[in-house]
Amino acid sequence: MTDAAEAIAEAIPRPEEEPPPARIEAFSDGVFAIIITLLVLDLRVPREEALGGQSLDAALMRQWPLYAAYVLSFLQVGVVWSNHHTMFHYIRRSDHVLLVLNLLLLLCVAVLPFTTAMLAEYARAGHAERQLAAMVYSGALCAAGLFFSAMWQHALRAGLVSARADQHRLQSLRFHWMLVPLLYGLAFVIAWVDARLSIVIYIVLLVYYALPGPSVVRWQTRRGARLAALR
Amino acid sequence: MTDAAEAIAEAIPRPEEEPPPARIEAFSDGVFAIIITLLVLDLRVPREEALGGQSLDAALMRQWPLYAAYVLSFLQVGVVWSNHHTMFHYIRRSDHVLLVLNLLLLLCVAVLPFTTAMLAEYARAGHAERQLAAMVYSGALCAAGLFFSAMWQHALRAGLVSARADQHRLQSLRFHWMLVPLLYGLAFVIAWVDARLSIVIYIVLLVYYALPGPSVVRWQTRRGARLAALR
Amino acid sequence: MTDAAEAIAEAIPRPEEEPPPARIEAFSDGVFAIIITLLVLDLRVPREEALGGQSLDAALMRQWPLYAAYVLSFLQVGVVWSNHHTMFHYIRRSDHVLLVLNLLLLLCVAVLPFTTAMLAEYARAGHAERQLAAMVYSGALCAAGLFFSAMWQHALRAGLVSARADQHRLQSLRFHWMLVPLLYGLAFVIAWVDARLSIVIYIVLLVYYALPGPSVVRWQTRRGARLAALR
Amino acid sequence: MTDAAEAIAEAIPRPEEEPPPARIEAFSDGVFAIIITLLVLDLRVPREEALGGQSLDAALMRQWPLYAAYVLSFLQVGVVWSNHHTMFHYIRRSDHVLLVLNLLLLLCVAVLPFTTAMLAEYARAGHAERQLAAMVYSGALCAAGLFFSAMWQHALRAGLVSARADQHRLQSLRFHWMLVPLLYGLAFVIAWVDARLSIVIYIVLLVYYALPGPSVVRWQTRRGARLAALR
Repeated sequence: MTDAAEAIAEAIPRPEEEPPPARIEAFSDGVFAIIITLLVLDLRVPREEALGGQSLDAALMRQWPLYAAYVLSFLQVGVVWSNHHTMFHYIRRSDHVLLVLNLLLLLCVAVLPFTTAMLAEYARAGHAERQLAAMVYSGALCAAGLFFSAMWQHALRAGLVSARADQHRLQSLRFHWMLVPLLYGLAFVIAWVDARLSIVIYIVLLVYYALPGPSVVRWQTRRGARLAALR
Repeated sequence: MTDAAEAIAEAIPRPEEEPPPARIEAFSDGVFAIIITLLVLDLRVPREEALGGQSLDAALMRQWPLYAAYVLSFLQVGVVWSNHHTMFHYIRRSDHVLLVLNLLLLLCVAVLPFTTAMLAEYARAGHAERQLAAMVYSGALCAAGLFFSAMWQHALRAGLVSARADQHRLQSLRFHWMLVPLLYGLAFVIAWVDARLSIVIYIVLLVYYALPGPSVVRWQTRRGARLAALR
Repeated sequence: MTDAAEAIAEAIPRPEEEPPPARIEAFSDGVFAIIITLLVLDLRVPREEALGGQSLDAALMRQWPLYAAYVLSFLQVGVVWSNHHTMFHYIRRSDHVLLVLNLLLLLCVAVLPFTTAMLAEYARAGHAERQLAAMVYSGALCAAGLFFSAMWQHALRAGLVSARADQHRLQSLRFHWMLVPLLYGLAFVIAWVDARLSIVIYIVLLVYYALPGPSVVRWQTRRGARLAALR
Repeated sequence: MTDAAEAIAEAIPRPEEEPPPARIEAFSDGVFAIIITLLVLDLRVPREEALGGQSLDAALMRQWPLYAAYVLSFLQVGVVWSNHHTMFHYIRRSDHVLLVLNLLLLLCVAVLPFTTAMLAEYARAGHAERQLAAMVYSGALCAAGLFFSAMWQHALRAGLVSARADQHRLQSLRFHWMLVPLLYGLAFVIAWVDARLSIVIYIVLLVYYALPGPSVVRWQTRRGARLAALR
């Protein structure tokens, strides 16, 4: 009977059936690499016969929102990739919830070529269109941020994280990544007022999350460590 | 003469010439990552000049089947990827038949961007078109399911699977994966009656195969273990 | 002075600067995975408004050359991938020539989405167009075969191959892969006579190179071993 | 108090949070593989109905700039990939600056499908258009060269490079890679005079950087070694 109990216990799905973190990370890296490269497909070469009387440089200049959107989204994906790597630096095990959340994160990031193209297409359109394009752009990134943050919260709660990691640091990263959806949510709301302003927020966010060891994390980690030392 | 016999024996193609399972899995992961990302190419930005009098949000709303199909197929590929990983968790060796079946599986999954675009294009068309689009969609996934299931059957039969794996579990997975083509076959038949109903089946299947340690596998494995314990 | 001589000897470019075989293989795998997946982009969904009075299934049927070409080229890339793997199973070191030949091989394989689309577009056109499309298709694969074979010849000559490998087998593979450009060259010539006939050759080649441990290699290896045993 | 100091020291972002060089290289390899393959999307099959009275071979011939641009850019990416590998052969650690510079390098290389398509589109246009297309093409590669060179300079300065590497060689590579942006800058200026001449420079550069152990590096390394030996 103990044998049966053992067999039954053994029968409970074993976590190793889930792709290990390295596998999830490699798959995500692949998806990020493709998304970042697909962005170039939206840079359209003005066809010679469509130039009309216009010169090529005027036609190329006129497309500046395409270039701006390309650079913005390229760096955006780069920052997500880099933060994704930081997260998986600490993750030791994966479970089904992590897998599904990661898939939902990829789903939201993978629409970037679409939201980027829309942002570029309507950058010089009327207020209402520009507003909507900026809101869709922010919305998708806000959703991505939510899933990203949810992944980390879940990883902390479910003990998927390396036990030897510095607890202050893990908590700072939690705070750090919780800010992302909030800030994109803010960009979403601000797009309602002025789409241009929300683009400024994207750039600020980009610079902030692109900075090495972002100051808030450092400040937070230090503060946590100091408080712990005093106790 | 024994030397000659040995040389001849040696000359028989050695299995290591086949890509090892890790290699097949990495190649498949690459293909899955690309398929899942190509899906976004079908999300078309309504061109400004094509809006006519229509507002952008109305134009975006009108495209809802594109978004629904994107999410559906994205998750579909994600689930195939995850199950593919589960399978290769147990596979220790590869042979030529496995390689060819895997290639045929990829061939069927790789048409998803096409079948998805068709499903979205004809979601609001007449009955006959919708029916056909849903049948093509189900058909491709049913074929993918057949090859997926055939891979596993072959792996079990040809002894490509880790000898230390729990036999009850291997059999449950066999049953679990044999269901896939049957259920997509059902969706195929139901599409004949009502395309909308077959889409409901896709979603149910998605949720079922996305669940951690799907209940049928767990139930089956436990039952097998219990029966073995009683014997 | 000996120091100087040593330093100079040391200064000669070291082979490790070249990507190791594993790296070249991984890069090529990535390119193969993308080529094989891009093929689906040519499966065009008939747009609803373009159907005219025609039914969707008639429109889909009319596109049969697209599907045939998709399956043909998908399997073609799969076979190249698998043979590429077999080759790198034996290659232990890489050098610059191997790198360049491999790049030229990829260049020829990467045009498959183009040549495939042309083959499909002109499958039902006049004799001259069909002829040309089949010749371009064969020509690209013939060139790919030449570079593939050249890679192996170079690897054997430059001693890039594992020293412990069975010499008979290496030679059989040399013969085996030398056949590829010859047979595609034949398909090229035959396309001049009848494009349909050259497509039959593609399929025969596909089946032949897809077979596990192709008979000619086995026969050759055995024969070499037997001759060596008699000596 | 020492504990607090230690904790604070510990809190300083640790370099391992950055993706290790192997990861950056794998991600870049993925991006290179996709860029190199996307180039084929610009090879357009002349549609049967668009041929008019023209024969298919005339239509294909007329597109020769497409093929030339495809081959040129394919090899270009191949050479960047190979040099990227050589660089990472020596890099042992990564830091945030390296990560950002690498991302900017990829951003510049990823526009190649766009600049290539423009070069092909305007290869037979008027002087002004051809000039501009060649300048954009050179400009993007010049920028890529700048970031590539900056990566190496930074890696040397920040001590990211293997300590056991031959110093003469590292310095030769520095010189070698500093030439790239200069030469593309030259091509940029020359495009102002004659676009055709700048294309000749591209080809010369391609051959030079594709050569095994480029002569300037070898000469430089030897010279450095000789000078060191005399001292």
